[in-house]
Amino acid sequence: MSGVSTSVITDPALVAMFDCDPILVDVAPALSIVPGMTPNLILTSGPPLEWHEYTGGQRNAIIGGALYERLASSPAEAIAKLDAGEILVRGCHDYSCIGSLAGVTTASMPVLVLADQKTNRKAFCTLFEGAGTSRLNYGVYNEEVESNLQFLASVIGPALSELIHSLPEPIRVIPIMQRALHMGDELHSRNTAASLLFLREVMPALVSMEPVRAKELTSYFMTGEYFFLRISMAACKLLADQMSGTPGSGIVTAMAFSCKEFGIRVAGFGDRWFRGPLPKVETSGLFPGFTTDDIEVMGGESPITETCGLGALAQATAFPLQRYQGGSAADMVARNLEMYEIAVAEHPWFHIPFFDYRGTPAGISVQLVAQTKIAPLMDVGIAGKNGGQIGAGCFRAPLEPFLEAARLLEEAKL
Amino acid sequence: MSGVSTSVITDPALVAMFDCDPILVDVAPALSIVPGMTPNLILTSGPPLEWHEYTGGQRNAIIGGALYERLASSPAEAIAKLDAGEILVRGCHDYSCIGSLAGVTTASMPVLVLADQKTNRKAFCTLFEGAGTSRLNYGVYNEEVESNLQFLASVIGPALSELIHSLPEPIRVIPIMQRALHMGDELHSRNTAASLLFLREVMPALVSMEPVRAKELTSYFMTGEYFFLRISMAACKLLADQMSGTPGSGIVTAMAFSCKEFGIRVAGFGDRWFRGPLPKVETSGLFPGFTTDDIEVMGGESPITETCGLGALAQATAFPLQRYQGGSAADMVARNLEMYEIAVAEHPWFHIPFFDYRGTPAGISVQLVAQTKIAPLMDVGIAGKNGGQIGAGCFRAPLEPFLEAARLLEEAKL
Repeated sequence: MSGVSTSVITDPALVAMFDCDPILVDVAPALSIVPGMTPNLILTSGPPLEWHEYTGGQRNAIIGGALYERLASSPAEAIAKLDAGEILVRGCHDYSCIGSLAGVTTASMPVLVLADQKTNRKAFCTLFEGAGTSRLNYGVYNEEVESNLQFLASVIGPALSELIHSLPEPIRVIPIMQRALHMGDELHSRNTAASLLFLREVMPALVSMEPVRAKELTSYFMTGEYFFLRISMAACKLLADQMSGTPGSGIVTAMAFSCKEFGIRVAGFGDRWFRGPLPKVETSGLFPGFTTDDIEVMGGESPITETCGLGALAQATAFPLQRYQGGSAADMVARNLEMYEIAVAEHPWFHIPFFDYRGTPAGISVQLVAQTKIAPLMDVGIAGKNGGQIGAGCFRAPLEPFLEAARLLEEAKL
Repeated sequence: MSGVSTSVITDPALVAMFDCDPILVDVAPALSIVPGMTPNLILTSGPPLEWHEYTGGQRNAIIGGALYERLASSPAEAIAKLDAGEILVRGCHDYSCIGSLAGVTTASMPVLVLADQKTNRKAFCTLFEGAGTSRLNYGVYNEEVESNLQFLASVIGPALSELIHSLPEPIRVIPIMQRALHMGDELHSRNTAASLLFLREVMPALVSMEPVRAKELTSYFMTGEYFFLRISMAACKLLADQMSGTPGSGIVTAMAFSCKEFGIRVAGFGDRWFRGPLPKVETSGLFPGFTTDDIEVMGGESPITETCGLGALAQATAFPLQRYQGGSAADMVARNLEMYEIAVAEHPWFHIPFFDYRGTPAGISVQLVAQTKIAPLMDVGIAGKNGGQIGAGCFRAPLEPFLEAARLLEEAKL
């Protein structure tokens, strides 16, 4: 498939990352598979905050998660228990999870399980909630959302698990991602091709399943075009964590935000978060009837894909995205080229046909960000003030956390 | 889906073309559905020649077709019967068929049936023979080819027919084509996304089929990535024929070649062929071990897709094609832009995301070709002298037939 490597990777963090081959091994309830998961634990996106610091849609989603888990029978009771510490709130990243938007992950929710065969390390991500704008992770919890989450847990999760276990061999996700980049996806805001390529992989197993189950799964796969994003995110979490702890390395291993802050992790600093203000909207495509005044940031960890050379770092693979998230093809080319300024290498796996198969920018370096004052871009879904998705866009990270990490790395050398 | 129309279509031939909505209505043996088909008739690609004028791979494919139909028990007997006129050879285009490469279409072969619901007009194309390089339409007939053709006729054709008839509503192909153009296909040499999108459409019906049959079909769909090309070709044949007979129109309604000649049809001249020398290879990507000396032209009618604004006229939708057929992304952009010089309109259905959703060049005009001396380009598969596919490339049509048609149109006006 790929075969073209334009640069030899010598950076030790990247060498570690590329020594990983994520495979999809299961879909299982978080409680059964996520190390450290407990029934009263609610994971959410971004550098962790105290419970009372979560506001708006992200706070609503956390409360929704508590209600969904029957930890409380009313929002008031949920809030009281959260205040009392009977229900705990933690960051997804600390549990090998990765959150979409608000990122709420609770004990009974089915999670995709990505594993590295060599080390048996795992990463997890919840399932795509479907195409409706009302979703828990866009800050909404109501009967429709609840019933959909229950359907995912009772029907789709088990069916996916059965499907995965019936495959003759586990699905390697990198080849799917490579191909999808040649079919208009950048694997963050566009996963149209990857979702179909995944379907193609499981087709032989799908037609062998019990027909009712097969139809339910088929219908789920065909709802929206974002099924694969969660696989892409969990695979990237697995890849990025490979770099974590590389001594002295300034390679970014996570970019994530809560409702309040943006934060990054850096390979040389392990699990430490470097925090800064929320990202700025560079360009946006909002659904009809919405304006930028309606935008509410309620968290997001999907920029883990940018951390791995995808999303905004691969925009020139996904010109069709311009209609969804605003801007022109020329803008996308310019933005993509700009990202090479802050990356230490060209990706040996992920290529951009429009750039004559040049590898995507791989390995965002805090030192290069500090030097160029170019902050990373991120393709993201946009939530609205009343909950729900109202569009998509390209966000620019703040410089502060990169500058701080670069400064600390510089000081450590002295 | 589309929604963006950058130009109002006033050309009467194009107006007629865009008043057509091709749907896939069946897969059936040619004899049962193609008007005029007879058991002793062999259809082949290009402006028709006398039987004895066919040479090389195209001649071999015609002989292979006769053997496959049991019209003769040896090549020598087939040749004798062809010489004696007991086996007839005619052009696909005259039977509402459209041929891939040599284009051999015989009575028992299953054909895709595309229909326009308004007029009930139909167009037909044989099924993709699979990913092997040995195929009848690449000039090879042997046991492997024979057994594969029998499998298509006895298993795949009937299964596809059953699948199509079990769909809640017939498949409209234009929406699939529109989407595929936003996923890296130009729908001639690249049909990767369209084949998957087709799979997506039939999935609900597929999982309801008898499992053995469903598995056979699934395995066929997953062989190579060209299943959809034949649908694309038949749909374009249907669209192009809508324009045929428009009085005084210089819009091209067919571009096709045999082993000997290239030819075009022009809307104002109905079924008449304007003939010229074979196209020239503009760029090529050959499989390892082959050189341009190995190339043999053995016919092809797939440039019907270019006639409808696809293929080389939509290259900037398909940058990944550069590796398959040679050239760079910049070349593809330049070639695509050049094609606007000879088209009368911008396509209201088919858009190029890289050109900020500009419609593809629609309606090749013989007058504009005559005026600019720019001949149309065509993305094509390339056959080798010993049969089989040896690569793909971009061919340039000869100017002569366009100049002749333009001259006759000019004279008719005087």
